[in-house]
Amino acid sequence: MVIQQRITLPPMPRGFHLITRNVLDAIGKLPDSGLMHVLIQHTSAGLTLNENADPSVRDDFSAFMNHLVPENHPTYSHIFEGEDDMPAHLKASIIGSSVTIPITNGRLNLGTWQGIYLGEFRNHGGSRRLVITVTS
Amino acid sequence: MVIQQRITLPPMPRGFHLITRNVLDAIGKLPDSGLMHVLIQHTSAGLTLNENADPSVRDDFSAFMNHLVPENHPTYSHIFEGEDDMPAHLKASIIGSSVTIPITNGRLNLGTWQGIYLGEFRNHGGSRRLVITVTS
Amino acid sequence: MVIQQRITLPPMPRGFHLITRNVLDAIGKLPDSGLMHVLIQHTSAGLTLNENADPSVRDDFSAFMNHLVPENHPTYSHIFEGEDDMPAHLKASIIGSSVTIPITNGRLNLGTWQGIYLGEFRNHGGSRRLVITVTS
Repeated sequence: MVIQQRITLPPMPRGFHLITRNVLDAIGKLPDSGLMHVLIQHTSAGLTLNENADPSVRDDFSAFMNHLVPENHPTYSHIFEGEDDMPAHLKASIIGSSVTIPITNGRLNLGTWQGIYLGEFRNHGGSRRLVITVTS
Repeated sequence: MVIQQRITLPPMPRGFHLITRNVLDAIGKLPDSGLMHVLIQHTSAGLTLNENADPSVRDDFSAFMNHLVPENHPTYSHIFEGEDDMPAHLKASIIGSSVTIPITNGRLNLGTWQGIYLGEFRNHGGSRRLVITVTS
Repeated sequence: MVIQQRITLPPMPRGFHLITRNVLDAIGKLPDSGLMHVLIQHTSAGLTLNENADPSVRDDFSAFMNHLVPENHPTYSHIFEGEDDMPAHLKASIIGSSVTIPITNGRLNLGTWQGIYLGEFRNHGGSRRLVITVTS
C-alpha cells in the first residue's frame, strides 16, 4: 500500500531547520510498519537526519558546511545565478535530497535524538516542496 | 509489487553525467504510485540528484569534488590500484551509491530541475551496472 | 509485506567497520525480491556502502574523514559533549544514516566488492542500534 502527500514548507532562512513535526503533521496516520521516504524537490536544499535537541548543532552544521563548500571557489564556472548557487548545489548532493525512515508500531522508528533536518542552502530559497511516500 | 531491472551503462569519462533517461528507458512502465530505487553496484562511482539543465553544474561538481577529495593525500595507504582509486571510494560514500525517488501518477515525481547524476570517479571506470527496483 | 528487525551491535572502536554479515544474520530469510533498508538510530555514527575487501580502504576512510571534518574547528560552538562530538554529527550527515539495497532471488543484490560499512565517529560510541526493514 502506498500513501503519498506533497507539502510546501514556508520560506526558511539559510541554515539547518528541524522539520520532523511538519512532515508528521502532513502525512497523518501511519501504517503499523513500513518505510517513510521524504524527497525535497529542489537542487539547492537538502534533507538529512541529525540531532533534534540542541539548536547549536544546527548552527554548527550551517557554519561548517559554509566552510567546507565555500562561495566563490576558483573551481566554479556556474556563477550567473548568484554566489550562493553553486555551493548550494554541491551541499545538496553531499548532504542528500531524501531520507528514508522505518515505521514501527505506527510511529517513525527514529533514535531518541534523531530528527529530520532541512538544509536551506540559498540566501533566499523561498518555499520548498516535499513529497512524502509511505510504503507498507 | 516489485519490478526490478538491471542495466549496464556504457563507459563514461571521469565526471558527472545525467542518466535520468537511461534509467527511465530501462525500467519501462511505472506503477501509478510508489518508489523507485537505483543502486550503482560499484564502490568508485556514485549516484545523486541534482540540476538537470546547465551542464556547467556537472563540470563544477567534478572540479570541486576533485578539490575536496584530492589524489595523493597523505592520509591514503590504499594506493596500489592507482592514484584515482582511494579518492573514488571516498567520493562514492560522500555522494552516495543510490537514489530513491517517488512515483506519482505513473511518473517520477522529481522537481522540475532535478535529474539523476552518475558520478564516475575513476579515470577509466569502464561499464557500470545499475539495479533499478520499483515498489508499489 | 514488511519484515522488520532491530539489532544492537557491540561497541566498536572509532573508525569504519564492515557489518554486512551482522545485518544478514539478524534479518534471516529474505523475500525473493524487494528492498532492504537499514537505519542507524544515532546521530554520531553512519552507514554507507563501500569496498568489502581490503581493510586499508576502511583505514583510509577513517583518516580522511578525520582530516575533512577536524576536531576543534573554529566554526564549532557545540563543544560541551567532547571534541569528538560535533565532528561526529557532521560526518554522520555527510556519510549518511541509512542504506537501501535491492534484494534479487532472495539475496542482497550488491556489487561484488560492496559491503555495508558502519562509521563509528565517537571515541567511545558504545553499542549502536540498527533497524532493518525489508519491503517486498
